[in-house]
Amino acid sequence: MNKLVVTDTQVSAGIERALQITLRGADELLPQDEWTRKLQRAEATGQPLRIKFGMDPTAPDLHLGHTVVLNKMRQLQDLGHTVVPLIGDFTTLIGDPSGRNSTRPPLTREQIEANARTYFDQIRLVIDVDKAEVRYNSEWSDPLGARGMIELAARYTVARMMERDDFHKRFHGGQSISVHEFLYPLMQGYDSVALKSDLELGGTDQKFNLLMGRHLQQEYGQEPQCVLTMPLLEGLDGVQKMSKSKGNYIGITEPANTMFAKVLSISDELMWRWYTLLSFRSIEEIEALKAEVAAGRNQKDAKVALARELTARFHGGAAADAAEQDFANRSKGGVPDEIAEVALPGAPLGIAVLLKAAGLAPSSSEANRLIDGGGVRVDSAVVSDKGLKLATGTYVVQVGKRKFARVTLG
Amino acid sequence: MNKLVVTDTQVSAGIERALQITLRGADELLPQDEWTRKLQRAEATGQPLRIKFGMDPTAPDLHLGHTVVLNKMRQLQDLGHTVVPLIGDFTTLIGDPSGRNSTRPPLTREQIEANARTYFDQIRLVIDVDKAEVRYNSEWSDPLGARGMIELAARYTVARMMERDDFHKRFHGGQSISVHEFLYPLMQGYDSVALKSDLELGGTDQKFNLLMGRHLQQEYGQEPQCVLTMPLLEGLDGVQKMSKSKGNYIGITEPANTMFAKVLSISDELMWRWYTLLSFRSIEEIEALKAEVAAGRNQKDAKVALARELTARFHGGAAADAAEQDFANRSKGGVPDEIAEVALPGAPLGIAVLLKAAGLAPSSSEANRLIDGGGVRVDSAVVSDKGLKLATGTYVVQVGKRKFARVTLG
Repeated sequence: MNKLVVTDTQVSAGIERALQITLRGADELLPQDEWTRKLQRAEATGQPLRIKFGMDPTAPDLHLGHTVVLNKMRQLQDLGHTVVPLIGDFTTLIGDPSGRNSTRPPLTREQIEANARTYFDQIRLVIDVDKAEVRYNSEWSDPLGARGMIELAARYTVARMMERDDFHKRFHGGQSISVHEFLYPLMQGYDSVALKSDLELGGTDQKFNLLMGRHLQQEYGQEPQCVLTMPLLEGLDGVQKMSKSKGNYIGITEPANTMFAKVLSISDELMWRWYTLLSFRSIEEIEALKAEVAAGRNQKDAKVALARELTARFHGGAAADAAEQDFANRSKGGVPDEIAEVALPGAPLGIAVLLKAAGLAPSSSEANRLIDGGGVRVDSAVVSDKGLKLATGTYVVQVGKRKFARVTLG
Repeated sequence: MNKLVVTDTQVSAGIERALQITLRGADELLPQDEWTRKLQRAEATGQPLRIKFGMDPTAPDLHLGHTVVLNKMRQLQDLGHTVVPLIGDFTTLIGDPSGRNSTRPPLTREQIEANARTYFDQIRLVIDVDKAEVRYNSEWSDPLGARGMIELAARYTVARMMERDDFHKRFHGGQSISVHEFLYPLMQGYDSVALKSDLELGGTDQKFNLLMGRHLQQEYGQEPQCVLTMPLLEGLDGVQKMSKSKGNYIGITEPANTMFAKVLSISDELMWRWYTLLSFRSIEEIEALKAEVAAGRNQKDAKVALARELTARFHGGAAADAAEQDFANRSKGGVPDEIAEVALPGAPLGIAVLLKAAGLAPSSSEANRLIDGGGVRVDSAVVSDKGLKLATGTYVVQVGKRKFARVTLG
């Protein structure tokens, strides 16, 4: 992680603070002195800096890990700079031209725009989309034409391309690389030229591509952008990177109660990491909270505050209040205020069939296993008889600590 | 060199002959059985085959070495096939996009067309340009667009590109290769797709690029072209490849007398090689000539016949007759019929100054060396006195065996 090293002694308090905000939680800022000069120029001229953030319009279902970079954009937006979310529609319209990767079918213009809308509906809870300059890279990529592509490709060498980690490994590991794969980082870098970007944000795994933008801007006679990499967020387990496939994630559209409870489940150490990377609280506020905890305040208070902040961000203050109350109730073993209402026909119904039909168990056999384990309650009483049949009426059915449904049999 | 290996036993005499003509003097025909099948189909359907020959519209000054491939096209044209000279204007319009190679400035459309005209004025003495289908590759390269370039580049791997000899050497020798250099062979190969080429001709040094066309046609779902490589012609010395820079060439626009005399200067062995690669005579005629020489006829007769044929091709029969007569005169030590007429003022003139002024020696000091060597004659008499001054009058001045001028001093 970067340390705050101010190379220019004539830096104002405002610039120093902006630099601190830039560096908060960041992995690398390259080169820091150029960023300082850009900040100084912006302050002197009143001309905001341009912050590029590229995104692929294919996977609009975001989790908190994706919001780390968005948060940084929000912080820079709050400093008065122009955030430029860039939708990489050009390559998405092409899909995988080798036809070998069926997970990347070409998308239509309509699909891309629908994905972008879904995306912005989600990210507008983190950044101010209305103040952002949203761009699509097909705007300048198509007009490049075949000649522009050749001219662009002339700006980089094969040897440097091979230095990219994945290309290096694949080439020397005998795995094939198609020639067009060398064109993608060039196109992505050219986006920085077209946008006259001052800073590009990305994950640490994007560093090669971000530096390409810097290189190409110099090739095309522009002041090069700086590069700011953000770490990948650790998931609920505190060890692995947050990802859907690992199940250690919080989706930003997950219900308020779930989101709140999941935040409460993380370790104290991970909580402070999340404060740095996810909270909108200032560095000073977080330091004050840490001091309180060091002075004896319960870590859980800080965790509840984080859970409230994140839940409120995505669901509003009232939902966060309710989620907090719900979590407290369940912690005491009570039934949450709001639980799913399920109406099922065909009473009397066997308990295993009911659990499956109400979505409380994935299958009847799994339902039976849960009963055997003593994890199923009907109206607070543990069910021990797998043969139990329930007649017409309404029951609160509970599986484990957190799954509830109010089931009405008819 | 390929041997005539007919893999299909059901081949007609006509096909066998066409195959023989294809293989005459060739280095490689790949794959021969596919070419046989194409010839058979052409014979069966009456549909001529399409013979692609790419050329760079930058160097329109041709020597006999360049005509080896043209001759092969002529032979295939005589068999009824369609010759497609392809002018690679697309990359020429771009020039060297890295700006590092000043020897490849971008040419304008007008310059390219002027070069092409000069080119066709020269090659129409070898192939029937009016029957050929002349094409410019910008016709389909520009419409490819940025997307088409990416789709094209997806059809080939970096590893296979690296197998090309010059790329391999440069990469492993630490010399830089720009990414756009990988696009050029792809563009060239795509020309075969656009032209639906059946056969591509080129020098042995072009084999990689020719096979690229074959590969890409398969990728784009076409019947692939065959590839025919022709050797590089040995120059006057019989050892080095003919080239301008080595001075061992015969330019196809050189004067008839020079051309004739240069052909007569080659070795007997080289003469038969040139018969194979340059003569329009049939294989049978050449075999008959060889048999006559074996039976005692003078090799020089065969060489005169070759010199006549080539001189007549580029200058017409009458000029060839005159060149033959001129050569015979000079061989007997006589003065050729047509010699340069030079009028010089300032008589009396020193012999060394005169030789330089008349273009018979590059400098006065070189003129003096020639006199010392006994290589200078005035009106047939060897000059031994470097101090000789010539008064007003007309003199035949000779340097060595072949340089003459009729100098009138005033």
